[in-house]
Amino acid sequence: LPSKLPSTGVSIFTVMTRLANEHGAINLSQGFPDFDCAPELVEAVARHMRAGHNQYAPMQGVLALREALAMKIERLYGRRYDPATEITITSGATEGIFSTITAFVRPGDEVILFQPCYDSYAPAVQLNGGTPVFVTLRFPDYRVDWDEVRRALTPRTRLLLINSPHNPTGTMLSAGDMRELARVVDGRDVLVVGDEVYEHILFDGRRHESLARYPELSERSVVISSFGKTYHTTGWKVGYCAAPQALSAEIQRVHQFVTFAVNGAIQHAYAELVMRDPLAADLAPFYQAKRDLFLRLIEGSRFRPLPCEGTYFQLLDTSAITAERDADFALRLLREHGVASIPISPFLSGVEPGPVLRFCFAKRDETLERAAERLRRV
Amino acid sequence: LPSKLPSTGVSIFTVMTRLANEHGAINLSQGFPDFDCAPELVEAVARHMRAGHNQYAPMQGVLALREALAMKIERLYGRRYDPATEITITSGATEGIFSTITAFVRPGDEVILFQPCYDSYAPAVQLNGGTPVFVTLRFPDYRVDWDEVRRALTPRTRLLLINSPHNPTGTMLSAGDMRELARVVDGRDVLVVGDEVYEHILFDGRRHESLARYPELSERSVVISSFGKTYHTTGWKVGYCAAPQALSAEIQRVHQFVTFAVNGAIQHAYAELVMRDPLAADLAPFYQAKRDLFLRLIEGSRFRPLPCEGTYFQLLDTSAITAERDADFALRLLREHGVASIPISPFLSGVEPGPVLRFCFAKRDETLERAAERLRRV
Ligand SMILES: CSCCC(=O)C(=O)O
Ligand SMILES: CSCCC(=O)C(=O)O
Repeated sequence: LPSKLPSTGVSIFTVMTRLANEHGAINLSQGFPDFDCAPELVEAVARHMRAGHNQYAPMQGVLALREALAMKIERLYGRRYDPATEITITSGATEGIFSTITAFVRPGDEVILFQPCYDSYAPAVQLNGGTPVFVTLRFPDYRVDWDEVRRALTPRTRLLLINSPHNPTGTMLSAGDMRELARVVDGRDVLVVGDEVYEHILFDGRRHESLARYPELSERSVVISSFGKTYHTTGWKVGYCAAPQALSAEIQRVHQFVTFAVNGAIQHAYAELVMRDPLAADLAPFYQAKRDLFLRLIEGSRFRPLPCEGTYFQLLDTSAITAERDADFALRLLREHGVASIPISPFLSGVEPGPVLRFCFAKRDETLERAAERLRRV
Repeated sequence: LPSKLPSTGVSIFTVMTRLANEHGAINLSQGFPDFDCAPELVEAVARHMRAGHNQYAPMQGVLALREALAMKIERLYGRRYDPATEITITSGATEGIFSTITAFVRPGDEVILFQPCYDSYAPAVQLNGGTPVFVTLRFPDYRVDWDEVRRALTPRTRLLLINSPHNPTGTMLSAGDMRELARVVDGRDVLVVGDEVYEHILFDGRRHESLARYPELSERSVVISSFGKTYHTTGWKVGYCAAPQALSAEIQRVHQFVTFAVNGAIQHAYAELVMRDPLAADLAPFYQAKRDLFLRLIEGSRFRPLPCEGTYFQLLDTSAITAERDADFALRLLREHGVASIPISPFLSGVEPGPVLRFCFAKRDETLERAAERLRRV
C-alpha cells in the first residue's frame, strides 16, 4: 500500500507529548496551556447544551458567532466582512487551512510557504497535488527576504501562505513586510492565506499586521484564526476563515464535505465571549509576563533566547551547550533532563536546522520554574 | 476563479433546512432529531470540561473512547480492533469518510459508489482527483445488482463505498449481499469503506451486517460510524474509523492535517456511554415506534411508503399525487403545504430520480402528527 504522504510520520507534537508523558518529563513541547480556561466558559457551553444546541449547527457556522467575529475583525483591523457570506466556522484553524488549500490548489499548482513552518501546511498542499515552494527564514533573525519571494514566484504560483505571529520562531511580520507582500502579489493571480491564530499574543506593544488591515491584500486573502489560543481551549477545535464572498463560497463548498459543521453550543459560548471582549486585550500582558518570567528563570542557563515578539513559543539557542542535531538534543533533553521541547527540524525541509529548540511557555508559573531549574542544570 | 467543485452547490440539507426555517415549515428534511439528547450526557460533558479536558485530545482520539469502541465492535460484530493503532476518532463520520478517501484515492483512481448516496461521497472522491463510478440502486426496491458491480470494476478501481443501513432509501445490505461483496473484491486491490452511522437503527428484528463481521472483508475495510445518530447529538460531530493497522496509519496521516484532533471532553462523555451500554439496544425499538407512528398517520394520504428496514428516513412514493419532478414537488410541498422533505435527485447523478421524497422521522410524535396531518391534505 503506497502512502500518499510517504515522508510524513506522526506529527512531532504527538510524538513529543507522548514521549513526555511516558518519561514523566515537563512538557514544553506541544503548544497548549497546562492551566485551565475560564470556568464561566465551560458553564456557558453547558448552558447552551442544556438549551438544546445539540444538533447540526449551520454549515457556515452559528450566525451569532459569525456576527461577533465580523464585529471584532472590523474593530481590530478595520475591514468589514459580511457575516452572511464571508465567514466560515471550521473545525479549528487546522481544518480552515486544509479546506482553504483544498479549495484552491490543484495538481501542478505551486504554493509558497515560509519555513520553518507549521507541519500541516506542506502535506495539505501535497494531498491536493500541489508543490510547496519553500522560502527559508534564516537563523537567527528569521526575517523574510522579499527578493527571495520574488524569485520563488512562477506562473504556477497559486497561493502564498503567511503566518504571523509566527510559529515556531515567535517573529512577526511588520507593516513594511505587508507592503512588500502587497507589491509582490500585485498583478498576479495569487491568493494569500494568513494563519493568524496567535493574533492576540503580542509583546512589547507590537501591533498585529492582519491581512484584514490591508485592502489591497484582503481582497485576495483568506484570514484564518481560531479560539483555542485566545481562550485557553485548544481542545475545543473551533476556528474560522474570513474571506471575500467568492473565496468564502469555494471554501464552504469544500468545508461542507470535510466536516460539514462544528459544535453549535461551543460556537454560542464563544460568540458571547467575543461580543463581551472583542479585543481580548488582557491576553498579551498575561503571556508577556509568562515570557518574561521564563526568560528571567533561564538567565543562569547556557540556553540563549532569541527575540520573541509574539506567540507562546520561545526559541532557545543551544549552540553553547551542544553540537548535536536539534532533534537528537531534544530527545536527550527529554530523557536525561526531563524537559520536552520541539526541535526545529520538523518545521524545515531541505535546509540545515539552526541550533535551536522551541519551548512553549503557556504554562503555570510553577511549571516554568520547575522546567527552568532543570534547564539551568544542562 | 474556476471552482474545483463546479457542479456542487450548497448541500441540499443546508438549503432545505434554511427554506424550512424561512417558511416556518415542519422540517422533516435534514436528518436530525427535534428532541434533545439525554440530560446526563450534557452533564457528563460539563463534568469532563470542569475536570480540565479542554486542551488538545490525542490526535488518534481519547484512549478511553477507542477502548470502549473496540469492546463494542467486538461484542456486536465479533472483530477485535486494537485500540492503540486501529481506531481513529474523527470530526464526525463526514471527516472519517473524507480523510479515508483522501488517504487512499489518487488522480485517476475509480471509486464505486451506490447511488442514490449521501452527497459528500462523490465530491470527496473528486477533490482527490478520483472518478466516482456509480452503480445505481433502482426504484422501487433499491437492491444492489452485483453483476452490475462486477461490470463497474476496472483495474483502476481503488475503493468501493457501501452504506448500510442506507441513507436515503432505508434499505439494508443482507448477509447474502456481504458474501457477494466479498466475492466481487476477492483477488483485487480494492479497499472497502462502510458508512455505518445508522448501525443501531434497525427495524423488524433485522441484523446489521457490519463489514466488521466478515474477516475476508474487514481485513481490507474501513468501518466508519459516529455517535450523533445513536445518542441524539448530531451537532457534536464525533465519528470514528476502525481499520487494520496499515490502513489506520494512512488515515491518521491525513486526519492529523485535516482536523488534528476532536473535542476531548465530549469523547470522554461518549466513552462512558459506550462502556455502559455498548449495544444501544433501546434505539431500534424507539425509532421503530416512530416509523410505525408515521406510517400509521399517513395511511389516509396519497403518499405511499416504500419499505424502510433501517435509518430514520422514510421514502414516500408521490406518483399518485403528481408527475412533477421530485425537487419541484419538494419545494411546492414546503411552500404550499408547510412540510420540508428531501428530494431524491441530489443523491443521484445522471439517472432519472424515482417519484420519491425522503422524510426524516427522528421527530417528536407531536411533530410527526402535525406533519402527517398536512401530508394527508395533499
Ligand atoms: C495541533 S498540535 C500542535 C500545537 C501547536 O500549534 C504547536 O505546538 O505548534
Ligand atoms: C450533515 S447534514 C445531513 C444530515 C443527514 O445525514 C441527512 O439528512 O442525510
